[in-house]
Amino acid sequence: MAEQTVEVAVSTVIFGIQEHEGAAKLHLPLVRRVREPHLGSWALPGGPLRPEESLREAARRNLADTTGLDAAHLEQLYTFGAVDRGGPQRVVSIVYWALVRTEVAATTREDPHVAWFPAEELPPLAFDHEEIVGWAVKRLKNKLDYTHLSHALLPEEFTLGQLREVHEAILGRRLDPANFRRRTEASGTVRPTGAHQAGVRHRPPALYRSTAREELLT
Amino acid sequence: MAEQTVEVAVSTVIFGIQEHEGAAKLHLPLVRRVREPHLGSWALPGGPLRPEESLREAARRNLADTTGLDAAHLEQLYTFGAVDRGGPQRVVSIVYWALVRTEVAATTREDPHVAWFPAEELPPLAFDHEEIVGWAVKRLKNKLDYTHLSHALLPEEFTLGQLREVHEAILGRRLDPANFRRRTEASGTVRPTGAHQAGVRHRPPALYRSTAREELLT
Repeated sequence: MAEQTVEVAVSTVIFGIQEHEGAAKLHLPLVRRVREPHLGSWALPGGPLRPEESLREAARRNLADTTGLDAAHLEQLYTFGAVDRGGPQRVVSIVYWALVRTEVAATTREDPHVAWFPAEELPPLAFDHEEIVGWAVKRLKNKLDYTHLSHALLPEEFTLGQLREVHEAILGRRLDPANFRRRTEASGTVRPTGAHQAGVRHRPPALYRSTAREELLT
Repeated sequence: MAEQTVEVAVSTVIFGIQEHEGAAKLHLPLVRRVREPHLGSWALPGGPLRPEESLREAARRNLADTTGLDAAHLEQLYTFGAVDRGGPQRVVSIVYWALVRTEVAATTREDPHVAWFPAEELPPLAFDHEEIVGWAVKRLKNKLDYTHLSHALLPEEFTLGQLREVHEAILGRRLDPANFRRRTEASGTVRPTGAHQAGVRHRPPALYRSTAREELLT
């Protein structure tokens, strides 16, 4: 049997929170493919691993090239290497997932080949990228319960209402505001800054900061 | 810059329980390298990914070639791809970890290049394999609490004392027998078979089976 080569690629599933139809929703940026296979299809940001960069550096490059943003969280998800993943060349893809902050996610530079989509309304994706996004969403949901990852999707200062909206956007369901407030305050993961949200006249909500911010830095 | 190639390898950290100095201890098999680099050093079972096999199939092949055993549990651990991992050729290693059953682990066929070592007394390892084993041990310890993975290291029927010894071997500390028995019985993850351990004359301990066995099959 002739020896075939196996190529190594790094792809990154990038999550940010954006408004969609009046509500905060989990979004991710996709890249339109400009060559075969799957020419014209949407795909996860990624590409061949360069010989001089680590896996993590390649994931950071995906993120910077696609969004111009730094990650508030960056983590290896899984390596996908089935023999036939939908292209003529066998590619093993090491997949990372990243969280970026809301307030900067909206300022992504203009690029006709990049667009943000709600995670629940993705277009058909190239290769096995739909399966990969499914894994990443599942991992994010699972980690929500036992980490402070949701803070990485918010500005430095936020209201408990904003934090709840992030949880609702990831879980895809409404949470009881009073219960959420009680649980969050009891968790010790946030502390009030003493300031209140600007631009709200009647009972402006208190602003909080994450006490877990350091752990999130990557 | 000239394009260098990146090779893809799959390695597997295999865990089994064996007696060592009179106590059940976590062990793993290592393979003595028969070529450069690191000729003569001990290393994790592994090798280049073959073009026609999936990542998981490669991990199963590592396991079969090294131990002649099937995995009771097999799971992807992490992908290691630093630029310099200690060899002249850049290799990205997708690492799996496996659990094999005690009663068969001891029957491993004779091979002068394979030996089982206690996880706490490993010889110096080739490449970054010491770091990789450290990750695998940590993952196993973490999963012990919220899964029934320990059952995969035992025969089909076992005493609660044997189960406790497996937990002690992984955690590296003694557990209170009465507390362990109470917690395990309350967890609903084991059920008595009605039989007792053979060969014990005075109060032979009851035998149990895992009720979670199906989840472990891979």
